Amino acid sequence: MNAYPKSLKNVINLLKNMPGLGEKSATRLAFYLLNMSDEDVKNFCDTILNMKRSVSSCKECFHLSDGDLCSICSDPSRNSYQICVVETTSDVISIEEAGVFNGKYHVLGGTINPVEDTEISDLKIEELIKRIDRHQIKEVIIATNPTPQGEATAHYLFQILKDKGIEITRIALGIPMGGDIKYVDPMTIKLALEGRRKFSEE
Amino acid sequence: MNAYPKSLKNVINLLKNMPGLGEKSATRLAFYLLNMSDEDVKNFCDTILNMKRSVSSCKECFHLSDGDLCSICSDPSRNSYQICVVETTSDVISIEEAGVFNGKYHVLGGTINPVEDTEISDLKIEELIKRIDRHQIKEVIIATNPTPQGEATAHYLFQILKDKGIEITRIALGIPMGGDIKYVDPMTIKLALEGRRKFSEE
Repeated sequence: MNAYPKSLKNVINLLKNMPGLGEKSATRLAFYLLNMSDEDVKNFCDTILNMKRSVSSCKECFHLSDGDLCSICSDPSRNSYQICVVETTSDVISIEEAGVFNGKYHVLGGTINPVEDTEISDLKIEELIKRIDRHQIKEVIIATNPTPQGEATAHYLFQILKDKGIEITRIALGIPMGGDIKYVDPMTIKLALEGRRKFSEE
Repeated sequence: MNAYPKSLKNVINLLKNMPGLGEKSATRLAFYLLNMSDEDVKNFCDTILNMKRSVSSCKECFHLSDGDLCSICSDPSRNSYQICVVETTSDVISIEEAGVFNGKYHVLGGTINPVEDTEISDLKIEELIKRIDRHQIKEVIIATNPTPQGEATAHYLFQILKDKGIEITRIALGIPMGGDIKYVDPMTIKLALEGRRKFSEE
């Protein structure tokens, strides 16, 4: 491995510590950077540093944002009476990519998880309650993950919000599209049966 | 896709233009960078910029180097009487990783290729001849790739060097380890048969 100049090896070592990159892909990327023009590399670094400087949390929903409000909260075409409560910003992005929801979000920043020392006060629950009190919210959709921690958080939220006079719903849990019942775990089957709906012809 | 802040999207777009990275892996890396500490990101960029500043060509063999001479040319434990001529620095690295050669290298910087406008004068052939004239070289191993361009370059080098009074050899071309003769192309089979050696018990 001493066939590489040290400064190149340093870059390879940095890159191969990143998720999904092994020795080979890190080496390929380092060579790609080495062969880029000085200007392009400077631009590459500036773009990353600029992201670090600009990206913060939306003051309203705590999704990632370049300014005070994220692109979703500041979009006047989205309805403000539905709030979809999720664990992380990645969940927002997944739901946005599905392109089926036109309300707003609230990113909790995790789940209630005594094992990992996440306190209820670490989550943006106070801020959710304030949003509900301040705005005309009709429905809160609780879209935490169907894990023990996500379920515990969903139940906690329900207890806290149930007297607010708004609709509180939970995303459906069941067999995913393309899933195969013979490989699905018993808990999912139980939830899918409990959540069954009347067959309609539409 | 407008669920991402613009500055984050810029980083994703940059990364997904890099070799081997698609939308998903670029997004994962961008989030990884976003979650790194400011200091670590600064260090990441500095390491890349430092590589761009420091890496140049070895004055002797034209392999990548942090200084005037690369780590191979400046290694006194390597013999100076064998020069392995390769097309690119990546070839040096592959041969080094095999750990079976203890001589020095000469990186041509490409092949003779009329289609891609590579002129003979673009290759470091003059420099190779000067090295041979200046130092006590016993053998030049021509290790260009077995492609039409690599073969043409190998033949050209042989014509130029054959009267220098040194041994000129070509790496063996044949079936690779783990290869399967029924899937190997006819040209490789021809070369493997032509290059056959007497079976020895060692």
